[in-house]
Amino acid sequence: MLKNNTPLTVAIVGFGTVGRSVARILCDGGHPALKLSHVCNRRVAQKQVDWVPSDVVWTDDFERVLSSDVDVVVELIGGVDPATDWIRRALQAGKAVVTANKQVIAHHGADLLAVAVSHDRQLGFEGAVAGGVPVIHGVREGLAGDSLVRVMGILNGTCNYILTRMESDGVSFDSALQEAQELGFAEADPTADVDGFDAQAKLAILSAVGLNRHINTSDIPLRTITTVEAIDFAYAGKLDCTIRQVSRAEVDPAHPDAIFASVQPTLVPRSSSLARVEGSRNVVVVDGRFGGETAFSGFGAGGDPTGVAVVSDLEAIARAGLAGPTAARASEPAEILTAFVGPHYIRFVVADRPGIIASLADVFSRHGVNIDSVFQEPGWSKDELPFVVTLESCESTVVERALEESAAFDFNVRPPLWMPVLQTEDTR
Amino acid sequence: MLKNNTPLTVAIVGFGTVGRSVARILCDGGHPALKLSHVCNRRVAQKQVDWVPSDVVWTDDFERVLSSDVDVVVELIGGVDPATDWIRRALQAGKAVVTANKQVIAHHGADLLAVAVSHDRQLGFEGAVAGGVPVIHGVREGLAGDSLVRVMGILNGTCNYILTRMESDGVSFDSALQEAQELGFAEADPTADVDGFDAQAKLAILSAVGLNRHINTSDIPLRTITTVEAIDFAYAGKLDCTIRQVSRAEVDPAHPDAIFASVQPTLVPRSSSLARVEGSRNVVVVDGRFGGETAFSGFGAGGDPTGVAVVSDLEAIARAGLAGPTAARASEPAEILTAFVGPHYIRFVVADRPGIIASLADVFSRHGVNIDSVFQEPGWSKDELPFVVTLESCESTVVERALEESAAFDFNVRPPLWMPVLQTEDTR
Repeated sequence: MLKNNTPLTVAIVGFGTVGRSVARILCDGGHPALKLSHVCNRRVAQKQVDWVPSDVVWTDDFERVLSSDVDVVVELIGGVDPATDWIRRALQAGKAVVTANKQVIAHHGADLLAVAVSHDRQLGFEGAVAGGVPVIHGVREGLAGDSLVRVMGILNGTCNYILTRMESDGVSFDSALQEAQELGFAEADPTADVDGFDAQAKLAILSAVGLNRHINTSDIPLRTITTVEAIDFAYAGKLDCTIRQVSRAEVDPAHPDAIFASVQPTLVPRSSSLARVEGSRNVVVVDGRFGGETAFSGFGAGGDPTGVAVVSDLEAIARAGLAGPTAARASEPAEILTAFVGPHYIRFVVADRPGIIASLADVFSRHGVNIDSVFQEPGWSKDELPFVVTLESCESTVVERALEESAAFDFNVRPPLWMPVLQTEDTR
Repeated sequence: MLKNNTPLTVAIVGFGTVGRSVARILCDGGHPALKLSHVCNRRVAQKQVDWVPSDVVWTDDFERVLSSDVDVVVELIGGVDPATDWIRRALQAGKAVVTANKQVIAHHGADLLAVAVSHDRQLGFEGAVAGGVPVIHGVREGLAGDSLVRVMGILNGTCNYILTRMESDGVSFDSALQEAQELGFAEADPTADVDGFDAQAKLAILSAVGLNRHINTSDIPLRTITTVEAIDFAYAGKLDCTIRQVSRAEVDPAHPDAIFASVQPTLVPRSSSLARVEGSRNVVVVDGRFGGETAFSGFGAGGDPTGVAVVSDLEAIARAGLAGPTAARASEPAEILTAFVGPHYIRFVVADRPGIIASLADVFSRHGVNIDSVFQEPGWSKDELPFVVTLESCESTVVERALEESAAFDFNVRPPLWMPVLQTEDTR
């Protein structure tokens, strides 16, 4: 496109926060290879702004975009329907497509990439994972020379805000959530964030791009962060750890057709890159066979960071052409492994009486699991006493069975909280 | 290249640590679009290994590589001569070139890019800055949608190793240096690292790529880290800071034809991404007008991380073709600004007597500079007493003049140490 100096024409479909940011960046003079030509939105008259060039076509009819000669369609309407269908039809109509829609790419990305390949058109989705953190380009181009074996990330800014608030000020989950809602970081219904569905979609995309495996997004096991309590940060601190919602996918040499994947609250060593991301920022840490650990961090959400990701994809299409090579990278389907080996943190809350530790120790011992440490902070009511058992590295399936048995004891005031302890280069 | 399934042929020129790593990655089966065809090195018979395919040509004659039909020349001989000339001639002969040679790119990059453009061949140099940290691709492709206003980095692993050792164990500069030398992190002559020449070259490259300005590399002002003492970490700690060799380049809206640039020991808030990189790792932090702060971190040196960077460049050429678009990105020449505004840290070492603080306060006051704090740790000899004055944000040129006057007092046992205090989003 650049060669003959004709800019690519761009249609923005969905003129919300991100759409407006993309328009603003495109109209700012820094991108001569790109030209905004259409804005498409429901009730478009209410959306119209006066700071875009007067020749931009405003329409509420996607069919009009489709039948125009626009080069690239930027899909920013969100949701799975009709976005998936619109992206497919745009590719079939010979348009390149850029989207920031994580649900569409996580659940239908493999199909859409196949459509893109068969119609020889690019499909960019840098904005679908971790907003402004350029991890898709960073991994695909910057680490193309490596072979990645693990991708991990702090992929949900709301969870990270809540957990860092609980850590730094000892507030409860509910207070931290309410604060996040008041600041606009969390939705009125925070389920997608705190239960892990948002991170699940992003992890599925990262697995496809980084590990070259596509997995059934809904099969990635999730654990909520709602059961984490302020006391867990105190106990984690004794292990020189903090607690984060960690999304993790890892190849397993013993299972070439599968990858381990999970999204769950995790004890993370304070020295780890994952522990050092505060507030609503995101980080992605990848491990390569040759290059070791590389980390990318930045703003994971917000109109402007996501707008930058979208325009970066548009620039890639301007450089390489509508039929450029990125769409051609297909990933292999893979099963999901849920079992893993590592140390574990288990926090019980009990009505105190003699013999509790002995009963639990007996259960773990019968399952062949070694207790590494027991922590019990003073000053708690005997009716609702929290204490922690950490286990030496062992199979998660064994812990699961031992926990099932432990949970049956009537001294439990509520179910035990089980978190893996992340092992890093330094701690392994 | 990929389209017709013929792999790109690759000549490795210079078969040292990085060259061997590149060969190993290329021969590992993960890069079907690339084929190692030549290895060129002085006294090549001594270098030959048995784990590359038997059809690879081993030669000690660069002319033979040049006259062959090889597609890409990987320059890894190091040094400015004859590397610069060889890269130029390879481009002129119609080869794409990949290099990890920071001195060549820092001092002759603009010329070589012009040769690359005029011969329509790509020139890749991801490995020339921060080894395995994919910052060139990350900035060029991943942040193509943003307009960067600042690049900062911890670009020299040796300095970072020394400073983190001084910080964590209170050892002297000399002990930390000796330790780094024993571990092979530092050269017998550490000048290029500790005085900043290595980081200077990398910063010049980052300015060209990130800020789109090329500057005269040797003009970037340097300050050595050899004058930093263990006590400075104690005083920095009181300001919730640590000390790092920070490389920094920043646009100045008032001077569109110039950029601020410097490499110097700097007080860095502990919460900053720059403070959190330990040992020999590197980090690059960029600020964009739209996307805010994005950080890239990883292993800054070493055969395998640098090898990954080289192979990532080779893959980019395989995707986009020998004449791909990356080479076309030219930067504008710019002057270097050395003056800056910010808070300052000044550590004096004096032979104690009454009235010293008063004399210094008088000097600063006459220059219109406000003292922010004075720190004096107990327990030091009166003959060689270190203490610190911090100054409120002011022009560096004013501090320079005040320091010249202060240094003339005969109570100084050695010259004062002056470091800027980095302001981050959080502290500004």
